[in-house]
Amino acid sequence: MITWKNLDTLESYKALCATEKINLVEAMSGEAGAERVKTYTVPMGAGMDFNFASRPVDDKILSVLADFAKEQQLPEKFAALYNGEIINTGEKRRVLHHMCRGQLGDAVVADGVDKREFYLGEQARIAEFVNKVHNGEITNAKGEKFTTVCQIGIGGSDLGPRAIYLALENWAKVNNTLKMKAAFISNVDPDDAAGVLSTLDLSRSIFVLVSKSGTTLETLTNESFVKDALAKAGLDASRHMVAVTSETSPLAKSSDYLAAFFMDDYIGGRFSSSSGVGGCVLSLAFGPEVFADFLKGAAEADEIAKSADLLQNPAMLDALIGVYERNVLGYPTTAVLPYSQALSRFPAHLQQLDMESNGKSVNRFGEPVNYVTGPVIFGEPGTNGQHSFYQLLHQGTDIIPLQFVGFRKSQMDTDIVIQDSTSQQKLAANVAAQIVAFACGKQDDNLNKNFKGGRPSSIIIGEKLTPAAVGALLAHFENKVMFQGFSWNVNSFDQEGVQLGKVLAKKVLAHETDGALKVYSDLLGI
Amino acid sequence: MITWKNLDTLESYKALCATEKINLVEAMSGEAGAERVKTYTVPMGAGMDFNFASRPVDDKILSVLADFAKEQQLPEKFAALYNGEIINTGEKRRVLHHMCRGQLGDAVVADGVDKREFYLGEQARIAEFVNKVHNGEITNAKGEKFTTVCQIGIGGSDLGPRAIYLALENWAKVNNTLKMKAAFISNVDPDDAAGVLSTLDLSRSIFVLVSKSGTTLETLTNESFVKDALAKAGLDASRHMVAVTSETSPLAKSSDYLAAFFMDDYIGGRFSSSSGVGGCVLSLAFGPEVFADFLKGAAEADEIAKSADLLQNPAMLDALIGVYERNVLGYPTTAVLPYSQALSRFPAHLQQLDMESNGKSVNRFGEPVNYVTGPVIFGEPGTNGQHSFYQLLHQGTDIIPLQFVGFRKSQMDTDIVIQDSTSQQKLAANVAAQIVAFACGKQDDNLNKNFKGGRPSSIIIGEKLTPAAVGALLAHFENKVMFQGFSWNVNSFDQEGVQLGKVLAKKVLAHETDGALKVYSDLLGI
Repeated sequence: MITWKNLDTLESYKALCATEKINLVEAMSGEAGAERVKTYTVPMGAGMDFNFASRPVDDKILSVLADFAKEQQLPEKFAALYNGEIINTGEKRRVLHHMCRGQLGDAVVADGVDKREFYLGEQARIAEFVNKVHNGEITNAKGEKFTTVCQIGIGGSDLGPRAIYLALENWAKVNNTLKMKAAFISNVDPDDAAGVLSTLDLSRSIFVLVSKSGTTLETLTNESFVKDALAKAGLDASRHMVAVTSETSPLAKSSDYLAAFFMDDYIGGRFSSSSGVGGCVLSLAFGPEVFADFLKGAAEADEIAKSADLLQNPAMLDALIGVYERNVLGYPTTAVLPYSQALSRFPAHLQQLDMESNGKSVNRFGEPVNYVTGPVIFGEPGTNGQHSFYQLLHQGTDIIPLQFVGFRKSQMDTDIVIQDSTSQQKLAANVAAQIVAFACGKQDDNLNKNFKGGRPSSIIIGEKLTPAAVGALLAHFENKVMFQGFSWNVNSFDQEGVQLGKVLAKKVLAHETDGALKVYSDLLGI
Repeated sequence: MITWKNLDTLESYKALCATEKINLVEAMSGEAGAERVKTYTVPMGAGMDFNFASRPVDDKILSVLADFAKEQQLPEKFAALYNGEIINTGEKRRVLHHMCRGQLGDAVVADGVDKREFYLGEQARIAEFVNKVHNGEITNAKGEKFTTVCQIGIGGSDLGPRAIYLALENWAKVNNTLKMKAAFISNVDPDDAAGVLSTLDLSRSIFVLVSKSGTTLETLTNESFVKDALAKAGLDASRHMVAVTSETSPLAKSSDYLAAFFMDDYIGGRFSSSSGVGGCVLSLAFGPEVFADFLKGAAEADEIAKSADLLQNPAMLDALIGVYERNVLGYPTTAVLPYSQALSRFPAHLQQLDMESNGKSVNRFGEPVNYVTGPVIFGEPGTNGQHSFYQLLHQGTDIIPLQFVGFRKSQMDTDIVIQDSTSQQKLAANVAAQIVAFACGKQDDNLNKNFKGGRPSSIIIGEKLTPAAVGALLAHFENKVMFQGFSWNVNSFDQEGVQLGKVLAKKVLAHETDGALKVYSDLLGI
């Protein structure tokens, strides 16, 4: 029997607040520090490890966090989710994105359809279509092969798929599996579409229109923008466009598209990268096999996230240490810092995933909560960030917990030795150095050169950023966000906070405004 | 006579803490709200306006902030800076980036050189070189024109120039002044250089190596990486590379470069976009005239920032309202939200500018301060952010002040009418709607759909994102950061917090580690 409880009603949360805080500088120094790095690590799928040695916990705090996981029934709540209960209470929907990549529990039949079969079926339909594009069965009107795929979508239909494409573009190049270049149009700013289109050969481009509802303003506007450009180029838009949408959307049966692929209301936008939302564009870009490998990595991380043993469950562990940092230690922000240029837009995806899921002030029953929930998430790849905002992270007045990601090998395997080390070694050396610099600091009598340390971080370490590794990374953070939502007792799967702006924007466009809104509209020339 | 004082010693700061806070929902509602939007606005150069109607201030608070500006001698400190005093106390340097774009006060002669003439002279040398590249006097070995410029630099040698290039790339396309495409290599990750090089025609590319000291690890490594690639392509690297550095650097007199252009120690990296650091790559990309227009916009904003009248000085006003939000209201984070896809990397530049300048815990004399200093800065372009992290901004448990930027016209002037409005109108309508949604909120009995409002923002409004507008935007934020540094009495122009990581990374590469650092290094395969 699952009970949904607010954070501050839990006995284990009270115990957590009462635990003695650790001195991270001491804990991470000397042989004890070395021992922590060796033991505070747990496999997270696809050959990667989640190492939490530099997070501000010790065995005592971990034991209280394990009590917390049990009292808040985190494993049971995850099981309820993947077994198909209505976890998204706000919108009264199931939450089934895990089924796009594996069968974690019971079969879920909804509206007479086995949902796992439905998602697999759509993947198979996408793969079949993609293979026809790649082998030249589906071409442009002149019989020429398509060379570029351009996704039209915004938010969850853009950030995840774009981040994953960039994560694997160079990997695919060197593995001879970059079938088509990908581009992305998202913003309603006309310069976004016009700028992207100016770089494409329209006659050889296929556009993937992604909108679950089929009513997203930005996406429909950009679809028209693209159709207009295709028409001006003398091309038949319906031969250049596919739709990814729900079966009930106005796009589903339209003859405007070469094909339509489906997801449903049980796949939230920010959790949709492993559905057709990511699957169509990524399969076109890299081939269905690469996308399947990506799903395998995600499925592996999902399986690990089922463990009821906190110390064997990196997503739950990451989530609960994050709750401790946020609610007990009072840190309002978290930075995501991948030491991999290929992950340059991964922090932007996590920013949506985390902030849109858990940036809530009411619990799942719509009652106000008396504690802070989701933090601000931001980040850039290292070593770039070191030459940018790390100054504040090291010596600023606030403490910002950090989430590093690092790999032993580069993707492209093109490297040079300068001063006895490769660039990849320099990259890896820098992330190792930063973790210790943040944790341990360094005393200096000149306080301007003094580093207090005590700044917590974890690191995910992998061999190489492969499709499976990207899948596991994605699933790790999806599951982390889910466990944090359960911990705070919020509904991580709706987003009512985006509605008011939409309503007011419509009023502005209809010139139905007064007061401040009218003056702002005038100043902006509307 | 200037006196440098800590924030918490100021009478006006104590008065500020004691002022009554405003109710933003009330203040922005009805006719009073409309009146605020009309009156709380001030020109900021290049035809743009800084509108602060939705920031949490009223006439009383503004009057105390004016007292604060006077007591903390902000105009006098800015004058001391541009007149050449040693404002960067940590490194004992002058701070002269304003001189790259104008003569704000006295001539500054250092080491026998008139610095304004020096910077102007380098601009002229760059323009002369660039014109020769554009007109084909300087070519590759085969006599073919260069078509692409690739900047090699990191931090301040990357973020600002890259953000400005992206801001003007599409504008230049439609104004027939995109002379050369630009690319950027920054990260020591070998996949960054290898990935970028795989997209370039090396034989037609010119590389701009940017390092003031001539010793930046990442940049020198990437230079070798590029030279290696050029050699493998049978090209003479010295015919494909220029340096931007200081006259005393090892790069200055090397025969490895077609030319070397100079800045000096009085131009900090994150303030160097208007020096040769930005000037060389941007002039090659767009032509020297476009870069000159950019400088004119910056100079205009600088002139406005000299005003001792707070209400006529948008940079000072933005700075002091920010201090009020940070220190009195306790908000730890600020988001920068440009409603312009062209400004997609502008928030990343501001992130460095702000966090590296003011993320400090000691004052300019090296004494610890007892108050918080620089906030975390993050942001993405709108409307994209609306479909990502705005959920937390609207309904999360923390309040995040917002800095919007919006324009009446698009850059490329390619647009379509859908549902009676253009995309540009939809874009502008959305930013107007968001400001009011954040400020006023909307009550709903269903608390999950309730918007409390009271979330402050300002907006910079311009006609179009032109070179001058980009210059004024850049200078506005540079000057804002400077005024905040003066307010907190920190040295905004050094960055000692980046040193420890460098030292430890060297130890890792030399295998001179023990304890936790050794284990992390082992795990990362170094």
